[in-house]
This record gives sequence, structure tokens and C-alpha cells, in this order.
Amino acid sequence: MPAEGSLPQRVTIREVGPRDGLQSERPLSLGDRARLIGALSRAGIPKIEAVSFVSPRAVPAMANAAQVWAAAERAPGVLYSALVPNRRGAEAAVEAGGFHSLQGFLAASDGYNTKNVGKTVQESVADVADVVRVARGAGITAECSISGAFGDPYGGDVAPERVADVASTVAAAGVDGVSVGDTTGMATPSRVWRVVELLRGRVPHLRLNLHFHDTRGTAMANVLAAMQAGVTEFDASIGGLGGSPFAPGTNGNLCTEDLVHMLVDMGIETGIDFDALMEAARVAEEVVGHPLAGQVAKAGPRWDVVGRNG
Amino acid sequence: MPAEGSLPQRVTIREVGPRDGLQSERPLSLGDRARLIGALSRAGIPKIEAVSFVSPRAVPAMANAAQVWAAAERAPGVLYSALVPNRRGAEAAVEAGGFHSLQGFLAASDGYNTKNVGKTVQESVADVADVVRVARGAGITAECSISGAFGDPYGGDVAPERVADVASTVAAAGVDGVSVGDTTGMATPSRVWRVVELLRGRVPHLRLNLHFHDTRGTAMANVLAAMQAGVTEFDASIGGLGGSPFAPGTNGNLCTEDLVHMLVDMGIETGIDFDALMEAARVAEEVVGHPLAGQVAKAGPRWDVVGRNG
Repeated sequence: MPAEGSLPQRVTIREVGPRDGLQSERPLSLGDRARLIGALSRAGIPKIEAVSFVSPRAVPAMANAAQVWAAAERAPGVLYSALVPNRRGAEAAVEAGGFHSLQGFLAASDGYNTKNVGKTVQESVADVADVVRVARGAGITAECSISGAFGDPYGGDVAPERVADVASTVAAAGVDGVSVGDTTGMATPSRVWRVVELLRGRVPHLRLNLHFHDTRGTAMANVLAAMQAGVTEFDASIGGLGGSPFAPGTNGNLCTEDLVHMLVDMGIETGIDFDALMEAARVAEEVVGHPLAGQVAKAGPRWDVVGRNG
Repeated sequence: MPAEGSLPQRVTIREVGPRDGLQSERPLSLGDRARLIGALSRAGIPKIEAVSFVSPRAVPAMANAAQVWAAAERAPGVLYSALVPNRRGAEAAVEAGGFHSLQGFLAASDGYNTKNVGKTVQESVADVADVVRVARGAGITAECSISGAFGDPYGGDVAPERVADVASTVAAAGVDGVSVGDTTGMATPSRVWRVVELLRGRVPHLRLNLHFHDTRGTAMANVLAAMQAGVTEFDASIGGLGGSPFAPGTNGNLCTEDLVHMLVDMGIETGIDFDALMEAARVAEEVVGHPLAGQVAKAGPRWDVVGRNG
């Protein structure tokens, strides 16, 4: 039987609601986007992906990143990142100032990458290398999201070896860490174990974050599997904000407060103020103007139901 | 890192949608209830809890169990059970005929049990013993659901030792197996490991089924944890049918097709025809007349997206 001792004592959550979560919503006002970042900052989430400097034509909901960022209340101790597609985006983020990290991105497979950015993976590696150079010049870190790492809805399945190859390539380009993303919810625990095992072998010193979507109901099980494999950093999105464009009506990103609720109950520290996180979930639902998928926000945390000393 | 070798090769699903799932819906027609049982039977689910012989005043949606059962298409090889609260219910089920098992029930805590049936747990044990006697007389098996085993919304938290005590007591009353239920979605993997470990120590020969609700998003992670602890039988509900009366709007039972989808992808056999299961999910949504929580039914199975040979 798996001992609880095999689980990490502490997990680092990176909140991606203001970026990955909002990008599939109708565009919100600059004030509402800034307000959401502020509410998340007050919850003490250790890392927040606040905005992205991408083309407003490609992703209208992410337009005016610099203005949103300038208006957002920030908290000391929180590490903020901006998603940037290339050198131009990276330079815009550095000019805006105040980010601790730039997040480049590419897909694990050519099919998905071409659909996303009209380039092969190899061509996108050059963009990631540019992002690294700009980050280095500004004295901040650079990481890279590898999306569609557990299956490509355009190009078929993605071998774990392919994910390790891409991680190895961006590591060679200088990134400090990778976020391996199950963008359309195709991961299951067995696949998580295989990918993590290969990454540990191929890029043992690269910081590893996993990014799950709950499109097919497996996100929380995937987190458990990943923690057992030694992974301690996960993306999550407040309220579960963010659907998949390929599967309307399905759940989106793994929900931050549902994840933190489970971790708290398992005695795994996150450093997050749970009550302030629930308030951020309320703000998220208010700014998007429709119900979100988060379940603890509806049912209440178990400790409220059984009593704080239960 | 957990090896996949530590997972079971095969898992037995017990479908509870027609009973636990429908009991919180507005009452359906006898024909629709029978139709759902038929659709599930055709999917080759190994066990189905088809009806319950409880008071129609207490649970209007479960009225006329004998008529529903008589009208339902059954499949050879499927083991059918009826939920029964006491001797009278057990006798009604035996008179209806054709069940392979009677399922008694009680809660783990007095608070919850009193709310459910107006008796203490000890008083309900006498009912379970009566159910065992009736089942023995009819030459069929008797099992017992222990509800609220991971937390009681009325009486506070429930110690794992208490669950083991109750399981031990109903084992002494002669049941062949227990279904330990997280009725209001308060279990997390750590709690699952503790309860399973205690049960293995106290009642090692008792057949063990776990029954999870996804009220706080942890049901699938709990199944993974339980499988790692050697549990191979789980309740699930088609489409995720069945909410919790204490938390309106939240997810109900663990969704059968989402669970089977994950197991298939992990190479764990269930003996279920997945396409027929998806058809049963469609029937479930049609008979209740509103969208259900199941996610694979919306997003499609991953193997359809990446290609059957992906």
C-alpha cells in the first residue's frame, strides 16, 4: 500500500486563471482582469501567470496586457510570469516590467504547433531561445510550456519519448523549467508516470511543472500520480476557468481551490490562504458572469461541514 | 515511482445509476426506469443495483420497484442487486425474484443514520441481520452499504476506526461484502488509504467495494488511491447521475463512463462494452431530461480523438 510518506510535504501551485483561464472567455474589462489578479495575489498563491503578450487579433481576450498588468494589485513574495510567444512578446513584457519569469511555449507535436502558431516545433524552438535571451538580458528566469503533451487532437497520439525530446531541446535552448501540458485532457495516471519517468531520465535538472485539464475527469487523479512520482509543481486555474476550444461544455483547467482543498486535507502544504482563495473564486465567477466548474465553492470545504476540529 | 504493476489488472464496476442516481431525480416513468436498466445491461456491466424496496413516501423516485424490475431487460452474466432497508424490503425483493444479491444499508455514524432512517447504527445492524437471513433463505448473497464513511454532515468527522468497527459488526451479522460510501464527497486519497488499511486488518475476508461521490472533485483520485491499496470493486453511476441533497448543484456519484474511460486507457480490464456504455449514458440523459455531469460523453473518448491506433 502506498505510504503517505511517499507524497511530497509541499506543493507549489502556479495560478493560470488570469491567462489560460480567461483566454477562452469573452474579453473582460481591463479593470476586471486586474481585479482577478489582485484577488489571487491576496490569497498568497506562490506563482501567478498574470497576462500574455500575444497578438490581440489571435487572442482578443488577452489584449492590452501591459495596461492590465499596470493596474493589478500585486503581493510581495508572489512570483509573476507573462506568457510570451517570441522575442517581440518577451521585449514587451520586459518593457512592462515587474515579471519574475517569461513563459515561452510550443506544442509537443508539429500538428498541434502548426495549428497554434503556424510553425513547426523546430521553428518554435528558435522563438523559445529568443525568449530565453531576452529574459537573461533582463535578469529574470525563462520557462517553456509544452502543450498537447498527452495527445494532439489534430495529429494523433504523442509518444512520451517525443515529449522528452522536446523538453531536452528547450533545455538546451536555456530554459530554467518546463510546464508539460495536457491541453485537451487526454492524460491518465499511467501516461503521467511514463512521461515523468522519461523526463527525470533525460532532463533531471530541469524544473518540472505539470498542467492538467479536466476535460475527461482525470486531472485530480493525474496530480496524485504525479506527486507520487515526485512532481511538486502544478498549474491550476481559479474556479476551473478555461475550457477547451475542441470540446465545448467540458471542464477546463484543473480547478485551483478544488486542488488546494484536497492537498490541505492530505496535509500537503501550499502556503495558500484558503479563505482568500475562495474569495478569489467568487471574484472569478463574478467577472466572467457565469457559473464556474469548481466544486468546493459550491459544496463548501469538508472542514466547514464536519467542523474545523473534525 | 509507483510501478503500473502495483495496479490491479481487472476492476469490477457496480452500476448504481438506476438506484442511487435516480433517487434524487424527479420520479421517472416505470418505462424509463426499466429502459435505463436495459441499456446498462446491454453494456455488460458486471453488477447493477437496479432498484430499491424502500418506502415510496420516503423516496418517491424509487416507488414501484417490482414493476420496474419486471419490465427491465436483463442480460445473462450480469449480477443484479436490490437495495433493501429491512426484513420487509428484503422479502419484497425476494418475492419479485431474479436478484443475485440484497444490499442492506446503514451509516457509519449515529448522526447520519438517525437522519436517514431514524435509528441508531446499532438498531440498524438488526435490520441488516434480518436482510442477511432473508437472503440466505433465498439462496442469494447479502451485502451492506456503509454510508457517510468519510464524514457525516450532521455529526462531524468519522474516524476510520469507526468505519472498521461498523464493517466488523455487519460482517459478524453475516454479510458477504461491504460497500464503503463517501456519500457526500468528503474523502481524499489519504483518508482512503487509512480506511482500506484498517479494513484489511480487521475484516480481511470481507469483499470490499468503495462508493465515491465527486462532490469536491476527488472521486477519481480516490479510485486511483484505492486501486493502489488493492481495492478492485467500485460503485459508479452512469452519466454521474445523482447529486447530494446537501449540496445542490454539485457533482454526484462518480461517473461510470468517465471511470471506465480512464481504466481502459490504463490497461485495466472491466469487461464493459464502452460503446454500449456511451449509449447508456445517452439514454440516462434522455430519461432524466437534463444534462449530466459526465465529461467523456461531451468530449469523446481520447482514442476517438487521437485515432483508435493512437
